Amino acid sequence: MYEGVVQDLIDELGRLPGVGPKGAQRIAFHLLTADPEDITRLADALVQIREKVRFCEVCGNVAEAEQCRICLDPRRDASLICVVEQSQDVAAIERTREFRGRYHVLGGAINPIGGVGPEDLRVRELVARLADGSVSEVILATDPNLEGEATATYLARLLTPFEGVRVSRLASGLPVGGDLEYADEVTLGRAFEGRRLLSGGTPSA
Amino acid sequence: MYEGVVQDLIDELGRLPGVGPKGAQRIAFHLLTADPEDITRLADALVQIREKVRFCEVCGNVAEAEQCRICLDPRRDASLICVVEQSQDVAAIERTREFRGRYHVLGGAINPIGGVGPEDLRVRELVARLADGSVSEVILATDPNLEGEATATYLARLLTPFEGVRVSRLASGLPVGGDLEYADEVTLGRAFEGRRLLSGGTPSA
Repeated sequence: MYEGVVQDLIDELGRLPGVGPKGAQRIAFHLLTADPEDITRLADALVQIREKVRFCEVCGNVAEAEQCRICLDPRRDASLICVVEQSQDVAAIERTREFRGRYHVLGGAINPIGGVGPEDLRVRELVARLADGSVSEVILATDPNLEGEATATYLARLLTPFEGVRVSRLASGLPVGGDLEYADEVTLGRAFEGRRLLSGGTPSA
Repeated sequence: MYEGVVQDLIDELGRLPGVGPKGAQRIAFHLLTADPEDITRLADALVQIREKVRFCEVCGNVAEAEQCRICLDPRRDASLICVVEQSQDVAAIERTREFRGRYHVLGGAINPIGGVGPEDLRVRELVARLADGSVSEVILATDPNLEGEATATYLARLLTPFEGVRVSRLASGLPVGGDLEYADEVTLGRAFEGRRLLSGGTPSA
């Protein structure tokens, strides 16, 4: 529909996740009239990630060196490992500033339908990190969905034999700022199960 | 939040229209795990448009040479000029395969609030194309919104002195495949005004 190079760019942009044909066209025409510097910076950023980014040999997070910034940081508590599905989850947890331990990025979740088994994830590498006995707790922070729960259950069982290693799972419940009325029944059920006592006695089941 | 080059790419992607911070992150991580060839093709496409794309010296459409493909195509009827706001509109009309004339891209629409007047658009170039008397009709295909209508009204008046040049405007009415019930009142009003007689007599106003 367009002259060659414009159409080439629209085609390439249209392959990106979340960018449809209309969005690709909009971005392409934005760039056509943009400062050439902007285009250069974007093209350079692409070349840079192709050339510089690799994955941390310890935790599997994105890195620019053999290890990622978190694994290289001596202030991070090496006795706590938070297991996540992907690097984006590391960033999400880092934004909370609640966790001062280290991470382990599995590279996905167990998904029998999608053909992803434990052997396709960085499970062996996780077990290896527990070998020297320095880890006291593994926090399973896989997604609160079917695949993430299956992965957490699998890992919890796998890690049971490691004495001195506690295995925990992130709490499920109502999202803060949410509206109880609009919570789905599974989330609301979990919120009941996980209710915390504010005063007196033990809650009845 | 991320290692330098990943964050750089997320920042650059986040500047694109229609791509928010979450979308930028999603695209960046998609590219991190994509075939390096994909990244190369996207980066190349960016460099290509920066270096190769210019605007047709006749109609103002995007082009890779001094003139665009449509102005260079001898099969296109040079006596018909369809005036549009931007190159994307040319592509939209080309997709209909209804129009075999040529185009004139204004580069926007008159918008007093946004500070865009006729002198900021390619109006002078349009008038120049009518000088040799070879043009028989100018079809005003600016957007059916406030700015587009103002631009069409302005151009219709401006072109009145050109004898032998008809000036027309695209029809407004109900979108095909739409639902009358959900049409806005202005569109529905236009659809009444522009109603076509299917049999017998003239419709009463």
